[in-house]
Amino acid sequence: MVTLTEAQKAALSPEAVNFLSNIRHIPFAATLSPFLTSPRRIPGLRRTFRDRAAAAEAELVSKHRLQLREITIAGVPVVVIEPPTIHTAKQQKILFNVHGGGFVLGNPDDRAALTMAAELGVRVYSINYTKAPEAKFPVARDQCLAVYRTLVCHGAPGGTSSGPIDPTDIYTMGSSSGAQVLVSMLLVAQREGLPMPTAGLYLCAPALDLSGAGDSMVTNAFDRDLLPVSMLIGMASQNYVPDRGIDARDPLYSPIYADYTASFPRTVITVGTRDFALSHGVRFFWKLRDAGVEVDLLVSEGMWHGFNWDPVVPEALRARAAVVKFLERSL
Amino acid sequence: MVTLTEAQKAALSPEAVNFLSNIRHIPFAATLSPFLTSPRRIPGLRRTFRDRAAAAEAELVSKHRLQLREITIAGVPVVVIEPPTIHTAKQQKILFNVHGGGFVLGNPDDRAALTMAAELGVRVYSINYTKAPEAKFPVARDQCLAVYRTLVCHGAPGGTSSGPIDPTDIYTMGSSSGAQVLVSMLLVAQREGLPMPTAGLYLCAPALDLSGAGDSMVTNAFDRDLLPVSMLIGMASQNYVPDRGIDARDPLYSPIYADYTASFPRTVITVGTRDFALSHGVRFFWKLRDAGVEVDLLVSEGMWHGFNWDPVVPEALRARAAVVKFLERSL
Repeated sequence: MVTLTEAQKAALSPEAVNFLSNIRHIPFAATLSPFLTSPRRIPGLRRTFRDRAAAAEAELVSKHRLQLREITIAGVPVVVIEPPTIHTAKQQKILFNVHGGGFVLGNPDDRAALTMAAELGVRVYSINYTKAPEAKFPVARDQCLAVYRTLVCHGAPGGTSSGPIDPTDIYTMGSSSGAQVLVSMLLVAQREGLPMPTAGLYLCAPALDLSGAGDSMVTNAFDRDLLPVSMLIGMASQNYVPDRGIDARDPLYSPIYADYTASFPRTVITVGTRDFALSHGVRFFWKLRDAGVEVDLLVSEGMWHGFNWDPVVPEALRARAAVVKFLERSL
Repeated sequence: MVTLTEAQKAALSPEAVNFLSNIRHIPFAATLSPFLTSPRRIPGLRRTFRDRAAAAEAELVSKHRLQLREITIAGVPVVVIEPPTIHTAKQQKILFNVHGGGFVLGNPDDRAALTMAAELGVRVYSINYTKAPEAKFPVARDQCLAVYRTLVCHGAPGGTSSGPIDPTDIYTMGSSSGAQVLVSMLLVAQREGLPMPTAGLYLCAPALDLSGAGDSMVTNAFDRDLLPVSMLIGMASQNYVPDRGIDARDPLYSPIYADYTASFPRTVITVGTRDFALSHGVRFFWKLRDAGVEVDLLVSEGMWHGFNWDPVVPEALRARAAVVKFLERSL
């Protein structure tokens, strides 16, 4: 159960109150997390996670008449999600998506990807990167980079144009752990001299600091957010950390510690005040702002990790509309 | 003492860690607050508050060579704070300021007013409204309104021009409880048909919901922020509530519940993640955004109520620079 007082309820929609009231945490999560997130438990966690999400995903595909197909780019499987109609101004645009799931769970055709295909109204290229523990850092990042490099240098199989994709036509999105993978990818792409995807970057509840630092990593660690922080830390530390080990403040591993320049893509970030990632979003906002990057931080009252993919919570609809508005300003 | 773990420290400047480490809360604040904030204790609280702030205020006046004088506008005392040089583009501008202090404490020549005179580089008209319990809601609001009405209809004694002040030349600022007074004033001014001050509104850690609702009113109630929320609630409920009583959700008493239109001034809001007012700022941001008002919300990691007037904390300097930048965009 999460803590939810009358004073907190009074500032939320009834739908959000209903959602929060129904969160059930694993008992003794802080103690049990290392066991629950050990590599041998990951297959079971994945099935549970997938089973829980499947109905909502199928409903989105059907409701928005989305077409899904899997293609291979640079040897990496990519799910292309296409809305039934695409506005002329968006025909050339794509959204390059890196899904979340604590590095160990999740799928490229999740609610985030499906919702954005429908609501932003563009083709989504959602990378089906190899998750941990099968692949540790930086495998997923490098798979994403290989796909990105191919898109901007050679083009996309199954795209409307045969040549390279203009980087000004590429939106990018990373949710939670996907944000770590994506921002690390953008930093390496920049070092390689690849052009930045400038249409707009959307970071949803980004996990950008794997060192555990941050105010919200403490205040939202238990009984506030959807998942105890100990579960997320267990997923990363036991599955994603490379065998040789890594400095948790390595700027490509925890991109909050990297240096940014004004050539980084314009960025919109969403977080909630119950979200363990609140501090990640807040700190990254200032980091980009100080670098001269156009950046919007959208904080939502009493919202949990990934709240904004909820189909009915008004706070989620409002946040999504604001994200789409930000991304469409580049048109 | 406030809670401050290594994970929280790691995301803060050393100066901020030092500040937070030195906060000493009154023991048993939740139990004692009704006694400590009863009307007969207010004179003592005021002296303590004033004595603690005096040295920092004197230093700001001296460092920035500010000129202060008290004038009377519409029968209300107003402190005019003038920086030694004023940029040509800012000669006609004024900052209309409503100070904070839980409705019962504080002074018009506080750090907020002095700092903004120096850093925004304009004349500040800081209203010396009658505090509670001597004056209850809406006396302070109506005093501010009388001053504002005089400024835009007749002009300011001691100003550079003799006629009315152009409302496009008026910045407004309200800190904490001062934000409640100021936003309520703007709403009444709008109803009266007075022109809005459109240069820009700055709300610092605004207290816009006196009903007690909000996520941060719970999470930041104890051992997180500068003052326990129970002290602030005691100040308002025992001193500021009118004798006839008031619905805490009255839109002029708790302006978070009012309706806004696109004609409301462009607004910048600062809050910290430890601030009891975080939820007030977050919710007001969406309220104004939904109304079509240009609004920026600047949330700072691990910062306390009113942090941004600190002279050395880098997070404070950064927030102030961002506020000044927002306000100067109207030039």
